Amino acid sequence: MEPRGETVVIALGGNAILQPGQRGTAEEQRANIAQTAGAIVSLIEMGHRVVVTHGNGPQVGNILIQNEEGADQVPAMPLDICGAQSQGLIGYMIQQALRNELLSRGRDPRVVSLVTQVVVDPADPAFDNPTKPVGPFYPAARAEALAAERGWVMREVRAGQWRRVVPSPDPIRIVERDEILALVESGVVVIASGGGGIPVTEGPGGVLRGVEAVVDKDLAGQRLAADIGADTFAIFTDVDRVALAFGTPEQRFLDRMTVEEAKAYLEAGHFPPGSMGPKVTAVVRFLEGGGRRAVIASVRRAADALAGRAGTLVTRD
Amino acid sequence: MEPRGETVVIALGGNAILQPGQRGTAEEQRANIAQTAGAIVSLIEMGHRVVVTHGNGPQVGNILIQNEEGADQVPAMPLDICGAQSQGLIGYMIQQALRNELLSRGRDPRVVSLVTQVVVDPADPAFDNPTKPVGPFYPAARAEALAAERGWVMREVRAGQWRRVVPSPDPIRIVERDEILALVESGVVVIASGGGGIPVTEGPGGVLRGVEAVVDKDLAGQRLAADIGADTFAIFTDVDRVALAFGTPEQRFLDRMTVEEAKAYLEAGHFPPGSMGPKVTAVVRFLEGGGRRAVIASVRRAADALAGRAGTLVTRD
Repeated sequence: MEPRGETVVIALGGNAILQPGQRGTAEEQRANIAQTAGAIVSLIEMGHRVVVTHGNGPQVGNILIQNEEGADQVPAMPLDICGAQSQGLIGYMIQQALRNELLSRGRDPRVVSLVTQVVVDPADPAFDNPTKPVGPFYPAARAEALAAERGWVMREVRAGQWRRVVPSPDPIRIVERDEILALVESGVVVIASGGGGIPVTEGPGGVLRGVEAVVDKDLAGQRLAADIGADTFAIFTDVDRVALAFGTPEQRFLDRMTVEEAKAYLEAGHFPPGSMGPKVTAVVRFLEGGGRRAVIASVRRAADALAGRAGTLVTRD
Repeated sequence: MEPRGETVVIALGGNAILQPGQRGTAEEQRANIAQTAGAIVSLIEMGHRVVVTHGNGPQVGNILIQNEEGADQVPAMPLDICGAQSQGLIGYMIQQALRNELLSRGRDPRVVSLVTQVVVDPADPAFDNPTKPVGPFYPAARAEALAAERGWVMREVRAGQWRRVVPSPDPIRIVERDEILALVESGVVVIASGGGGIPVTEGPGGVLRGVEAVVDKDLAGQRLAADIGADTFAIFTDVDRVALAFGTPEQRFLDRMTVEEAKAYLEAGHFPPGSMGPKVTAVVRFLEGGGRRAVIASVRRAADALAGRAGTLVTRD
């Protein structure tokens, strides 16, 4: 139950970087990341090769607000470029914190962050049905103007408050897969596919083009884990374990489940689409694609989860 | 005069990405970068292994303006983090354009951008004398308030217009050097050290910490070129060649010079500190550190310059 020397892809939830109620200062983010780095290095000390991917919701949200507020002076950037900015921002903070933590424990300190693109299918039905809210809240009049000016799809997410919604297509392929794999195999800790990767479509001759969409970071993490042949896919989030009937009197936490059980629970509607749903879907895809095991756990208990003492373990059978 | 199979570090000036008079839209930047990518791939077709570094002045300037304008809603990020954002932004655009250009010419399309940190010395005299203006222009009252609130050093750069100035220390070491070298040796085109790298100081035990400073991108490019043992260091800028007595009736363009000549011209004050000075200094350092040759040329004539048919060639003797 404590295999050594595995390749582990870790998907970090937003709370590993920025916690609810925090404003998002650099100091807050750095303090959270320092904690998270400690947990990740514990996995490395277990002998694992680690690839880190992470969400970017609060950070790209802030970048979009800054783009909007500065728009009189500076041309606003499209969503793919804002996503690339957030990969630089978060990648830098994690890279530096991990390096420092590795050094403090006398370990090989090599860590890099790669700007990562993820191929999506322009025929993905998500493009006909944008569902993912991004960026600031707008009053109705401004939302209408933005829809007209920029062709954005706007949705009223609270009474009188509108947000842009973008498609959330499935990830097909991590463009920089080979380079990530080569680095990992040479012992470097790699941070990649931040924010679900920068979504791109592939035209004739393989030409890539950024699209304004958001790929779910856990599904992109699964794609990355599968593409590099990882043994374990670990989703670290703000709950200790997966629960059935979450938030009801029948709520029950799971220490482990098989992929067949996970699929049955998904179909029975145990997992909300915006939160645990994509995580369990990502785990199912990983195991059905040949992955050995997956865990969903709290980042605070990362090492325990990999050792089978915390979180929800999901196995093929 | 057309050696094949060299490792070439290319430093791209701001104009390769954003040209004077342009507003800085994504479309403008993408169009400029597509042109630049064509020139870079011509070097790769000559058989060279290529590492690309680039400036970030206009882009990080825009990010700082957006930070300022959005500061009521979103905490402004420090300069090191803004620099990391700009590495993601520009790295993504160059990475995608290079990949597309390589594919269109039937070449190996592997390109990555790495978030890159550069070590500077906290005892560098630059920290006592901040000289590099960054970010927006402010009226006097606001400049005074920012100096008081944030400890910024402000300078009146035009009558009544103030800007923040930050130190511009010398680069000592590229933190991610080994990983860049491994990727280059395996045939991957690497984009690194964007904007001169993210300046960090190294504390006890090697712990890194970001600092609010800007490293000159040509000096950082030289550091990178030396650290990875590059054969050639190519600075691509907006002039065709280096000139003596630039802008005077005695102006004379140079097709080539030795490192000794370059040092003599530098001492004689032929090169302005804000523009050609650091480029020639970077070239001198590169050759004195064991580099074989350097060129300073227009990006439009990159391939000609590497073939000795354009630009200013600088050699050891």
